[in-house]
Amino acid sequence: MVKVFALALVSIATAISAVAAKDVPGQFKRLGACPTLGCVFPPDNAEFLAGAHFDVRVEVHAEDSDKPNPKYSLSIEKLKGSGHKNTNGNKAVDFSKFTKVKANAQETWDFNYYKDAAAYWKAQDGDKTSATPVHVASSAWRGVQLREPGTYKVTLKYNNGKKTEAIWTVNPVSKRKAKNVILFIGDGMTTPMIAAARLISKSHTSGKYTKKMHMDQFPVIGHVMTHSLDSLITDSANSASAYNTGHKSSAGALGVYPDSSATPFDDPKQELLAELLRRRSKKAGGRGGVGIVTTAEVQDATPAAVFAHTRNRDEKATIVDQMIRGENPVVADVILGGGGKYFHSKTGGKSLNGTDYYQTYSKERGYKVIHDKDALLKYKGSDPLLGIFHQGNMDVWLDRNVYKDNIKKTGSDPTGTGQPALNQPNLDQMVIKGMEVLEKRHHNSGWFLMAEAASVDKMMHPLDYDRALADLLELDSTVGKTREWLKKRKLDKDTLILVTADHGHSFDVYGSVDTQYFNSFSESEELEKKNSIGTYENSGWPSYEDADGDGFPDKWDVRYTLASGTAAFPSHREDFQINIGGARVPAVAKSVSHHHYKVHEPNSTEVGILKPGTLGVTESVGVHSLQDVPVFAAGPGSQLFSGVQDNTEIFHKIAEVLGLGN
Amino acid sequence: MVKVFALALVSIATAISAVAAKDVPGQFKRLGACPTLGCVFPPDNAEFLAGAHFDVRVEVHAEDSDKPNPKYSLSIEKLKGSGHKNTNGNKAVDFSKFTKVKANAQETWDFNYYKDAAAYWKAQDGDKTSATPVHVASSAWRGVQLREPGTYKVTLKYNNGKKTEAIWTVNPVSKRKAKNVILFIGDGMTTPMIAAARLISKSHTSGKYTKKMHMDQFPVIGHVMTHSLDSLITDSANSASAYNTGHKSSAGALGVYPDSSATPFDDPKQELLAELLRRRSKKAGGRGGVGIVTTAEVQDATPAAVFAHTRNRDEKATIVDQMIRGENPVVADVILGGGGKYFHSKTGGKSLNGTDYYQTYSKERGYKVIHDKDALLKYKGSDPLLGIFHQGNMDVWLDRNVYKDNIKKTGSDPTGTGQPALNQPNLDQMVIKGMEVLEKRHHNSGWFLMAEAASVDKMMHPLDYDRALADLLELDSTVGKTREWLKKRKLDKDTLILVTADHGHSFDVYGSVDTQYFNSFSESEELEKKNSIGTYENSGWPSYEDADGDGFPDKWDVRYTLASGTAAFPSHREDFQINIGGARVPAVAKSVSHHHYKVHEPNSTEVGILKPGTLGVTESVGVHSLQDVPVFAAGPGSQLFSGVQDNTEIFHKIAEVLGLGN
Repeated sequence: MVKVFALALVSIATAISAVAAKDVPGQFKRLGACPTLGCVFPPDNAEFLAGAHFDVRVEVHAEDSDKPNPKYSLSIEKLKGSGHKNTNGNKAVDFSKFTKVKANAQETWDFNYYKDAAAYWKAQDGDKTSATPVHVASSAWRGVQLREPGTYKVTLKYNNGKKTEAIWTVNPVSKRKAKNVILFIGDGMTTPMIAAARLISKSHTSGKYTKKMHMDQFPVIGHVMTHSLDSLITDSANSASAYNTGHKSSAGALGVYPDSSATPFDDPKQELLAELLRRRSKKAGGRGGVGIVTTAEVQDATPAAVFAHTRNRDEKATIVDQMIRGENPVVADVILGGGGKYFHSKTGGKSLNGTDYYQTYSKERGYKVIHDKDALLKYKGSDPLLGIFHQGNMDVWLDRNVYKDNIKKTGSDPTGTGQPALNQPNLDQMVIKGMEVLEKRHHNSGWFLMAEAASVDKMMHPLDYDRALADLLELDSTVGKTREWLKKRKLDKDTLILVTADHGHSFDVYGSVDTQYFNSFSESEELEKKNSIGTYENSGWPSYEDADGDGFPDKWDVRYTLASGTAAFPSHREDFQINIGGARVPAVAKSVSHHHYKVHEPNSTEVGILKPGTLGVTESVGVHSLQDVPVFAAGPGSQLFSGVQDNTEIFHKIAEVLGLGN
Repeated sequence: MVKVFALALVSIATAISAVAAKDVPGQFKRLGACPTLGCVFPPDNAEFLAGAHFDVRVEVHAEDSDKPNPKYSLSIEKLKGSGHKNTNGNKAVDFSKFTKVKANAQETWDFNYYKDAAAYWKAQDGDKTSATPVHVASSAWRGVQLREPGTYKVTLKYNNGKKTEAIWTVNPVSKRKAKNVILFIGDGMTTPMIAAARLISKSHTSGKYTKKMHMDQFPVIGHVMTHSLDSLITDSANSASAYNTGHKSSAGALGVYPDSSATPFDDPKQELLAELLRRRSKKAGGRGGVGIVTTAEVQDATPAAVFAHTRNRDEKATIVDQMIRGENPVVADVILGGGGKYFHSKTGGKSLNGTDYYQTYSKERGYKVIHDKDALLKYKGSDPLLGIFHQGNMDVWLDRNVYKDNIKKTGSDPTGTGQPALNQPNLDQMVIKGMEVLEKRHHNSGWFLMAEAASVDKMMHPLDYDRALADLLELDSTVGKTREWLKKRKLDKDTLILVTADHGHSFDVYGSVDTQYFNSFSESEELEKKNSIGTYENSGWPSYEDADGDGFPDKWDVRYTLASGTAAFPSHREDFQINIGGARVPAVAKSVSHHHYKVHEPNSTEVGILKPGTLGVTESVGVHSLQDVPVFAAGPGSQLFSGVQDNTEIFHKIAEVLGLGN
């Protein structure tokens, strides 16, 4: 269904190619996907689910000393040839009239932007004239719905004769194919990382595996393109937002198209998968369950994308509030992860207005609130479950399970006692408990569970490959246990399972390292150290082994490790060996400023060969990459995810599988 | 069918887990997948097609002053539980008796190996005692067949009571599903490279593509694991060999398991896909056609893997001879590519014994021999076609089509005139002509065509990303034209198309570069230059555009380029800009030796930020990487290629689709 519509869109787009607004080259933008002075959000090429709610915003810009012309109009027209009947005779009509939604009162504001890198870095050096001021007149339409599938043209007329056109496609509602959907997200996980994780944990004979990853056993593979609305590299917020809304967005945005206004809470919203599920009619299968599990803070980009709307993912205290209050809040049945500090105002607490949100969740919404693994495993109730196990992001698998002393140094207790959180659950335990609760509460209407292995990304950033791969293995082990759990309960035939990522990092393995030989030379003997790297036939095999069969290497500080790395890194030193004492810090800011900004240099506590950075010099960690990420699919509807697709299509395909919309 | 057997193998392997010979850690090996002193090739975990011919070799090793015990025996036993009847009552019987093939007379020889990096680098420094001498007694069985599907245990008894066991699985023959198979290989091509090639050539609006790659439109995607027999990183020979034989091998090997003897022509052979096709019975559809197209030398690893058997891929003169002479030579119907110098003995010629192989191919096998694009396009005959268009590897797409002056400097004429080869065809022209000839000669029995875009790899090695991506785009364009050609002739329903790679390089894109800003600073202002790299929202969009719709960017020297790179590189300088004057040379050997070896340093003719190498210091170019490569499949049997698979499985699945074996 989705595919047919993608094709229909292309043919329409060809027919009206004069309209097609190709993305414009350049690093800096005045505003998102708005190359001209007249902006329409949702922009050209947006795709909708029939009946989904969304906001519309138009902005008219004027640069420097110009003033924005406050006279503009928005019209909409249903196009011929999209295979559906036309309700308005293919004539452009006033947008408010067509949608029966009135625009808010016109607003005005100003903002600044940089035209290119030269202007930006001048500003970093203190030049206050290098930014370009922009003056804005804007209108918004809230809670619009397009219930009839087809292709629409939306036209903003502004500045006495200028116009911006946007083609929107509305997909039809499909027959439900599955009762439940589980969306596993390995944040930052790529195919090269999976290959590395497999190599260190699965046995092989004569170069062929005798055991595979659980992901390897999925019948369907697709590839997902992850670009942002306005840049080739996405962040986790806007990519997770694409999965939950079917709309592209910009860095940092959750469930909204970012406008240029100062407040992060007035941006035009897109309806979320969880919101659609919550308001589905009895006829279509009733209000469904929603579960959110993450090893990050539950307010972090990927989990927050399931329930929040804000232009700024850093508004974490407000995000806690958004879950249970405001307009049709999601009030998920299951919320498990870290992020305690945004729930309270005790030691380290940063909750909204000092509120005790543990209390609020419990009193206002009947949540059972828990804070450690024992309480999680013991819980057999059917009340909604809020399990917050850490002040911030949960510790990673290697520190939770192998290098436990690293946790003792922290004050990570989620209730703000200042003590360490020594009894955190693993991802598999959270997911299994999540499914138990969802089944109890929504066996008949079905449920959607998003489960994130967050620290694949969080450990790839500081180039801590061991910690990242261990968390990838934890995800894989969780996937295996989930499939087992579903099968035992005969739910596998009713449940679509997706395992995917939101973006990549440029990680790959290119050989092995004989660390014994590497370490036999002093720090000044870099040339000799490099000769410990074996490639091709001399890559041989690394020393990792999983003799106890738990899915993880038994030992991490082995002689033959992986020669691995990324293309995008800050200046650092590399020794190809595990950081036993905690997550790696590859680079630190120099004490003396270069011009007006802080250059980062290799962390002096690290050893190994020198790798001068391949990023802007103020970067302290590695960054996201372009590559398509894999999606592994199993269960009803899984075939839809085969082939290459945009990240927004994942939403539309899940919606199709769940029969959402209208 | 293949999948069922893979599972059967696992359960058998579990049942006899005491036998399972896990691969042993370490960079240096005495010999391939042979961790003990008694070696069996094919080794443990090998998989066969029923009826395929293969050689067997056993070697008994003794190190240092020990002598190998010449008394050893080989037995074979068909195991219970593999779902097939047992012909020999599940008792181990003498291998010669069971297979009715006698072993050759026992041979003996010596060789040396290094135990680890320390020993190897001592030797590079002139220490002659650091190698370990090995003395060998060996026997070989030539032309063995196992016609009955099932699981076999092969046991070598040696050194008075020691034994080496190998479990072999023989897959059954399947019903033919397709008449033709086209195997496109983008040598070294990965999913991150496809994403980069898509970005520079396909238009997008609001971050979503309005045009896709041809590969993107394939219905099925699989992932392929590429390990060698004995190392985590493969070369192009042993990975191509896996596709053509269903057997893993070692670096440099084509159609054989490498033994430890000095000669590269006595190693135990595996029957090739093309050989199986050539000797198929009339009953099964008759002798099929074989076509080989490459932009490399036709003797290079990937094309040679279709027809050659040697431990050493560098034996290119002999490989030319192997195509048409020897035991059941493949004598492909179509051979198109470079490699002229191995056909003649004129200027630059290196042919075997000075023979004029153009003459020999023509006289002995009736080939039409051609040397330029006009002759290729003009050819309408049905004789087998040998088109050799260059002395060495054909020039890359960018030099053939955009920077043509680079070709004029060369003496690349394939007939040895010393003149440049100015009229080389493009890949699509070679593939279309190849299909024309194959259809003329083998319309009824069907055909197998291997077409390689070789210089994705050959340009990734010297970090010439533009040239690599252009050749990837040439492959994609060829794939599109091939599907069109097949559709027009109603052959698409009969033809399985696979587009895959043999291994990866650790390439990815992590942002964009404002080259105007980059170039505004002097070479010493590295910090400022790095600030031209935009990431996340400031990656924006690059300036490439394909306005003329030919599938390639119209302009390559643009302002906003890709911030891209690899994890594995020699010391070099990076400016993120096209090398207009020819393929990049990133590093050159220092004039003064370090110890006894030549350290490579950045090529002084290159400019940009300094990137000290992440490889052994004698490396001059980038190296292959671990990541799974994609396989895109369309046509009959394509569903078989979904999911994650070993590279050897590609052979077995193609054999299944073509109904080969027995």
